[in-house]
Amino acid sequence: MTLILHHLNDSRSQRIVWLLEELEIPYELKCYKRLSNQRSPPELAKLTPTGLAPVLEDGDLKLAESGAIVDYVLQNYAQGKADPPLSGRTDDLYYAYYSEGTFMPVVFLKLLGTIAPAQSPFFVRPLVSLVFAGLNAAHIDGEVKKHANLIEDHLATKNWFCGGDKPTKADYMMVFPLQNLAQLKFAGPKTIEYLKRIQERPAWKKGIEKGGPYIYEV
Amino acid sequence: MTLILHHLNDSRSQRIVWLLEELEIPYELKCYKRLSNQRSPPELAKLTPTGLAPVLEDGDLKLAESGAIVDYVLQNYAQGKADPPLSGRTDDLYYAYYSEGTFMPVVFLKLLGTIAPAQSPFFVRPLVSLVFAGLNAAHIDGEVKKHANLIEDHLATKNWFCGGDKPTKADYMMVFPLQNLAQLKFAGPKTIEYLKRIQERPAWKKGIEKGGPYIYEV
Repeated sequence: MTLILHHLNDSRSQRIVWLLEELEIPYELKCYKRLSNQRSPPELAKLTPTGLAPVLEDGDLKLAESGAIVDYVLQNYAQGKADPPLSGRTDDLYYAYYSEGTFMPVVFLKLLGTIAPAQSPFFVRPLVSLVFAGLNAAHIDGEVKKHANLIEDHLATKNWFCGGDKPTKADYMMVFPLQNLAQLKFAGPKTIEYLKRIQERPAWKKGIEKGGPYIYEV
Repeated sequence: MTLILHHLNDSRSQRIVWLLEELEIPYELKCYKRLSNQRSPPELAKLTPTGLAPVLEDGDLKLAESGAIVDYVLQNYAQGKADPPLSGRTDDLYYAYYSEGTFMPVVFLKLLGTIAPAQSPFFVRPLVSLVFAGLNAAHIDGEVKKHANLIEDHLATKNWFCGGDKPTKADYMMVFPLQNLAQLKFAGPKTIEYLKRIQERPAWKKGIEKGGPYIYEV
C-alpha cells in the first residue's frame, strides 16, 4: 500500500514532502492550490473536518496535522534513519514542540501585523495598520528578535538542530517557522545558511520538482 | 534522583502537574508567580533562555516546552500507564499536535482580541478595540466556533480523547486550550463536562493543592 500525501502549496505540508523524499519512502503526491484569498480550497475540506493540509493516507488511516504526520512517519517508516545522536535527543524533543508551541505563535503575531491590514475591510485598514504598528513597537518585534537570536546561537556550531550529520524531527518541524522568519527579514546569517543548506539537498529539490514552487525559499 | 518541575501559576505547566500526579511519579515542585502584567518572573529566565514555564529537571537534563515534557515523561516514566487503546492511537498523535499547532492559535487570536485592547497604550485603546471587533466579526469567531464544534462532536461519545478509560497524551495536551476556550465562553456542553471530569479526578485536585489556584478551572 503506497502512502498518499495531500499537499497544499506554500504550507506546512512542504515539511512532509521533504521528509518523505529525504527518507526515500515511496508515496503518491496529490497537489492542491490555495484560493486567491490564500485560503485552502474546498476539496481539502472533504478530506478532514478542519480542511487543513497536510493529510497523509496510509491504507485506512487518514492523519492530519504536520507534527503528527512527522511523528507517524518516523515511528513507522524511518527505520532509525532520522534518529538524532544521543547528545541531541533532548534538543530533538524540545525543538519538535517549540516549533509550533512557542516559536510559530511569535512569528505569527508578527505576520499578523503584516497581513491583517491587507485583509481588513478597506474602511478600517488605516486603523489596523496603526494599531499593529503600535503593538509591534511595544512588544512583538522584541519577542521575534529574542527567539531569532536564540536560534542563531544554537545554529552557530551545528549544521542540524540536534548536532548530527543529518536532519531529524527537530529540523523537519523548525524549517517552516524559520522560513517564515526569513521572509519577515528577521533571520540571522547562520539561520539563512541553515535554510540554504536544506534547499541544496537533493531531497528538498526533488520535493519542489514534484510539489511545485514554494514561496518560502530563501 | 527526583524530578524537579518548575511551575508557573495559570500556565501550560498545569498540564505537567496533572500528568505527574496522575501517573504517581515522585517529583519536587518549585512554584513561580506571574508578575502583575501577567508576564513570567525573571527567576524563570535563569532556567531557560526563553524564560518560559514549565521546565523539568531530571538529573543533568533540563527540558522546557510542555509538549516535549509530556513526551519525555511518557517515554521514560509512564510504563504504559497512559497508552491509548489501539483504536485511539491515531487520535492520540493527532490531538497531541493539533492542540498547539492548530487549535491554540485559533483560541489565541480570539484571546488577543480580548487582551490586546487592555494592554495597548491608552491613546490607541479605542482603535485597538474597534479593529479587533472588526476582525472578530469577519473571521475569528467563525473559526473558533468551527473548532469548538468539531471537538464537541468528538467528545459526544467519548470520556477521553482516545476513547479509552483514562487520560492519554491527547488529553494532557488538549486540556489547556480547552480551558481557554471555556473561559472565552465558546465551549459546548460536552466539552464543559469533559473539563469537569478532569477537575474531579483526585490527581488533578492534588495538583491544585500543591501548585496553588488555577484561573482556568470551569
